[in-house]
Amino acid sequence: MTKNKPQSSDENLQIRMGTESDIESAFELVRELAEYEKALDEVTTTPDYYRTVYKQGLFSFIIAERKEEPVGIMIFFDAFSTWKGKMLWLEDFVVREQARRSGIGEQMFWFLVDYARKNEYALIKWEVLDWNTPAINFYKKIGARLETNWWDGKYFLK
Amino acid sequence: MTKNKPQSSDENLQIRMGTESDIESAFELVRELAEYEKALDEVTTTPDYYRTVYKQGLFSFIIAERKEEPVGIMIFFDAFSTWKGKMLWLEDFVVREQARRSGIGEQMFWFLVDYARKNEYALIKWEVLDWNTPAINFYKKIGARLETNWWDGKYFLK
Repeated sequence: MTKNKPQSSDENLQIRMGTESDIESAFELVRELAEYEKALDEVTTTPDYYRTVYKQGLFSFIIAERKEEPVGIMIFFDAFSTWKGKMLWLEDFVVREQARRSGIGEQMFWFLVDYARKNEYALIKWEVLDWNTPAINFYKKIGARLETNWWDGKYFLK
Repeated sequence: MTKNKPQSSDENLQIRMGTESDIESAFELVRELAEYEKALDEVTTTPDYYRTVYKQGLFSFIIAERKEEPVGIMIFFDAFSTWKGKMLWLEDFVVREQARRSGIGEQMFWFLVDYARKNEYALIKWEVLDWNTPAINFYKKIGARLETNWWDGKYFLK
């Protein structure tokens, strides 16, 4: 019956804003996602770099812990939609392999929505790989709009 | 022979950072792009809103003028790539219809690259509609990397 328990009943789960002391965990989970996305060799950042730009306000993050062990993160920053206004860009959203299918992702998403509403964002935006069916199904389930007609352009300077 | 003149020889063209007094022009060009992208009804922002969030530092922009008339804009903001670091997100890039095919877009792009290098961004990123062949060809020509395997996710709060 565990499966059907209300999600809020997991007393061991805590979702909160990340702080400087959580940077190392955040970086570790970013690497786990990059590995899942078959792009680990594209990660050229370091925890020290994260620390520096975090202090400059370049990003914020939410961390989920179960029994004080990090099981999920959402890394995001302020963005501007010329059409809609202030936008929260969700750059990375990771739930650790062993913690999936337990509702943690959904709880994290509603935590983020709540944060975004309180801070007057017009929308939350992110990207998902077209072959990442579990993630796509998750986003459909929570009522997000998925758009398949945009390509990414990148120009590397380093 | 005009067509083959070096681009820098257009003495009437000026490319510079936009300031508060250019907000109105920037907004107008955003609307022109939205119309081209068949999404004018999605634009719910206003010049006043732009002014407010511009002063808060939510975005910066570059403006191109010919004979003091605005012919192009690039609207961008600071973003964070968890893989690469500090990233310049190019949200809107518009060259006015009557000013196209004259090299202005390319000059604007190199102006932005120069700005991004000076300010230590690791990369510039943007999105382009999959049917916007002229834009796609432009990005290929300047040596950008185009990725077709990402979908956009959006969750609207307003």
